[in-house]
Amino acid sequence: MNLWTMLERARKLHPRVVAAVDGARRLDYATVAERARALAACLADRGVRPGDRVAILEPNSLEFLETYFAAAGAGAILCPLNTRLAPRELAAILVDADARVLFANGSFASVVAATLALGTPVELVIWIGADGGRLDDARTLHYDDALDADARTFRAAEVGDDAVAQLYYTSGTTGRPKGVMLTHRNVSEHALAAIAELGLSDRDTWGHIAPMFHLADAWATFALTWVGGRHVFVPRFDERLVLDAIERERITITNLIPTMLQRLVRFDGVETRDFSSFRRILSGGASIAPEVVRRVMEVFRCEYVQTYGMTETSPYLTLSLLKAHLALLPPAEQFRYRAKTGRAFLAVELEVVGDDELPVANDGVAVGEIRVRGATVTPGYWNRPDETRAALKDGWLRTGDLATIDAEGYVQIVDRKKDLINTGGEKVYSTEVEHALHEHAAVLEVAVYGVPDAEWGEAVRAAIVLRAGASVDAAELARHCRERLAGFKVPRVFEFLDELPKTGTGKITKLALRERAK
Amino acid sequence: MNLWTMLERARKLHPRVVAAVDGARRLDYATVAERARALAACLADRGVRPGDRVAILEPNSLEFLETYFAAAGAGAILCPLNTRLAPRELAAILVDADARVLFANGSFASVVAATLALGTPVELVIWIGADGGRLDDARTLHYDDALDADARTFRAAEVGDDAVAQLYYTSGTTGRPKGVMLTHRNVSEHALAAIAELGLSDRDTWGHIAPMFHLADAWATFALTWVGGRHVFVPRFDERLVLDAIERERITITNLIPTMLQRLVRFDGVETRDFSSFRRILSGGASIAPEVVRRVMEVFRCEYVQTYGMTETSPYLTLSLLKAHLALLPPAEQFRYRAKTGRAFLAVELEVVGDDELPVANDGVAVGEIRVRGATVTPGYWNRPDETRAALKDGWLRTGDLATIDAEGYVQIVDRKKDLINTGGEKVYSTEVEHALHEHAAVLEVAVYGVPDAEWGEAVRAAIVLRAGASVDAAELARHCRERLAGFKVPRVFEFLDELPKTGTGKITKLALRERAK
Repeated sequence: MNLWTMLERARKLHPRVVAAVDGARRLDYATVAERARALAACLADRGVRPGDRVAILEPNSLEFLETYFAAAGAGAILCPLNTRLAPRELAAILVDADARVLFANGSFASVVAATLALGTPVELVIWIGADGGRLDDARTLHYDDALDADARTFRAAEVGDDAVAQLYYTSGTTGRPKGVMLTHRNVSEHALAAIAELGLSDRDTWGHIAPMFHLADAWATFALTWVGGRHVFVPRFDERLVLDAIERERITITNLIPTMLQRLVRFDGVETRDFSSFRRILSGGASIAPEVVRRVMEVFRCEYVQTYGMTETSPYLTLSLLKAHLALLPPAEQFRYRAKTGRAFLAVELEVVGDDELPVANDGVAVGEIRVRGATVTPGYWNRPDETRAALKDGWLRTGDLATIDAEGYVQIVDRKKDLINTGGEKVYSTEVEHALHEHAAVLEVAVYGVPDAEWGEAVRAAIVLRAGASVDAAELARHCRERLAGFKVPRVFEFLDELPKTGTGKITKLALRERAK
Repeated sequence: MNLWTMLERARKLHPRVVAAVDGARRLDYATVAERARALAACLADRGVRPGDRVAILEPNSLEFLETYFAAAGAGAILCPLNTRLAPRELAAILVDADARVLFANGSFASVVAATLALGTPVELVIWIGADGGRLDDARTLHYDDALDADARTFRAAEVGDDAVAQLYYTSGTTGRPKGVMLTHRNVSEHALAAIAELGLSDRDTWGHIAPMFHLADAWATFALTWVGGRHVFVPRFDERLVLDAIERERITITNLIPTMLQRLVRFDGVETRDFSSFRRILSGGASIAPEVVRRVMEVFRCEYVQTYGMTETSPYLTLSLLKAHLALLPPAEQFRYRAKTGRAFLAVELEVVGDDELPVANDGVAVGEIRVRGATVTPGYWNRPDETRAALKDGWLRTGDLATIDAEGYVQIVDRKKDLINTGGEKVYSTEVEHALHEHAAVLEVAVYGVPDAEWGEAVRAAIVLRAGASVDAAELARHCRERLAGFKVPRVFEFLDELPKTGTGKITKLALRERAK
């Protein structure tokens, strides 16, 4: 089904329900659907045909949601852009995707001008919010004027299930932008499975706090609309803004990346806030230490669900939801499962396999690579047949993530395959060392990685960000690690940094640390 | 995905959870999966190839569930047979489906022998339960012996999503059996949407009380297995048996046809039973009077959900679940929605359209025909390209059901476009009964139609015009029908008329007959 039908359903079944809260704006589903319809008609009027690529550079907003649906209605492929990218990176994506239309927030006017000046296929820029002004390299239109399009004769494009709906770019290891294709079916199957797993309904209010250009949040655009739930948009991550939105709009569920959670639970006065509306907090996108999970559960007093996924899988692959019989265990034992990466998401088949392609023992000790298949798995990379073939073998997607799996089917990721450290023939899983360091009171953030070493092949190294006002030296951290870990796992070098290098979505990037260390 | 993967998921995630309760037998998912695997291996050993048809004639049982999955694992198409059909009807289906393997309960041995004696493609009969003995027309094997098959090298068939998984026969308007094809995708998409809509999980226990050969119950075979829920099998409808099973096994959810519900709520001592485990009762398959709904809610004290569907749509099309804002209404107003046919099921797009193919006003008054589309809609009828084309126009399935739709999107069925008779949840196509009566030498003209009946919803009635000089009584016509038709299709009343009411163009008008019968 075309993703457009989800909004159509909400328009029919929930016309007068508040669909979207964006600052002072509160719009119902009838209005949002009418606006998205006009926008889709405008795209069609401007020559956008099914299969054409349309890009968007926009913080979380009502317009972002409308554009997701309008693009689907027009049968176009939406290409959401990371708002933290530099003009050269943006231009490379626009060229690779051959995007002729770009939605962009007016506040990004200078970035857009610099991007287009590098040479892109973009012919039309549609400004959202503030007017970004005229451009030398493309025509411009304001979003509000686009909404004036005559939609009376508009009909949603008849695209097949397997038509590509969205194109998400990851910078990839080669540095060349690589577009992950997701079909209407990928996205709708994921939304349906997420509704089923998380019990989403028209009683829910989702907080769009993590960036909507990334799937960790974007999937909820579809799932919540499908069930007629409410969307609350938070345009940027600011602790006060987020906490105020949760309280004021009575958000019931959201997904936050671990760094965001850490900042929220330490925010001044967080204990006195009213989080009673919260049903569940989802977290994913990076590994999280059990200590942090404990603190999150104390502060928010709702169910905490660890998630794991990737763009290639729309995104969820596991959730740490408790099975019925595990919920009967004492709290401390329940917690062991809640803090794990999770068991397989309903929509996927998941296996942890060794080098021989056979499943490893489900003993929580043997390590293998996670591979998955199912209706939520990408058909491949945009115009990259070789990389598609390499990633998808016999219908299985190799994730590149190393993990254990226990007798209950709960997976625990121990490392990225490429982040695995090999020191003197011993394997060191960086997450294990990171979790040990997180148990030290002075440590705020940590990244453990390997660097080339003449004697040992690779040596273990840790980059540390300390809590404000805390003080600790390398010798003490080494001692702390030795109490918890085998000697070969203890970092040889500790670097103290003001912040860790991160990707646009907030993931710590060890590649940058390794480059620096050279 | 192959439906087989649902059972595989349960085996991995819920190996020691009680999966199935059938009389004194209680089996966990590891055991059920192992049995189904052996059965699938046996089918493959016996030459069953992907796409081959395998039929089953069996009351609700553990073995029925296992056979559903084993057939999927072998890539075969399972064809569940109505246990109330007469040998001639069964033989016609086996021939149409070209089924070479038949699973049958040993208690049906004489029906099976009579069926096979009529000439069918069946080469192998696998007896379930009591041994049905040897047959002249096919080899036989006992189910328990089939479970001895060596499954060590068995691998589930790699069938595409769009491969047919099941074939459900309806007798059709022409009287010829007509097989509705459902693909792996149809069935899995329905299961997932049902899990989402009804919040099914491993905390649920489903009562298989309505027949598993019919989709009204069969869909739950897949949905409950997928989430690791529990199955309780009730082999036949007997009030005490059903009520005992609900109490003893703490059933949380089930689907009952209105006639069953009526009988249960009137059963002696029902008020003193403990139904506290019940979360929801679903009912569908026939229209139900608001008075009965009221009584059901009083007795069972749980949520009542009206359902509507058809074999062609896997089956649900609407559910009378309350939307969030309707649940805030006073009970009497809530009840108005609960007793309606329902709003669109999550997996389908639903429209009520007039003769001009445009949606009728959503005022709860204007009547149109329901049409639907979505991933749960059949690709068509087995070897019936013309009937498939007629039913599916532009991707929409015409249901033949006439309904109103209100401003909240709740549908209310008011009549059937065709003269389908619904008696106790069983559909009777009048032309089929008319054809049987036409085979009697004394019958000149006949019209079969339904009249309201307190117990069965509708009762089958026949208006007969005899040939000149011929003489026959109701008892003989009933006997004539019983030889050709399942008992529920045999008219309860025969009226002998001098002529049938006809329209100006000479068509018999059943409306006039119905009016007269009142």
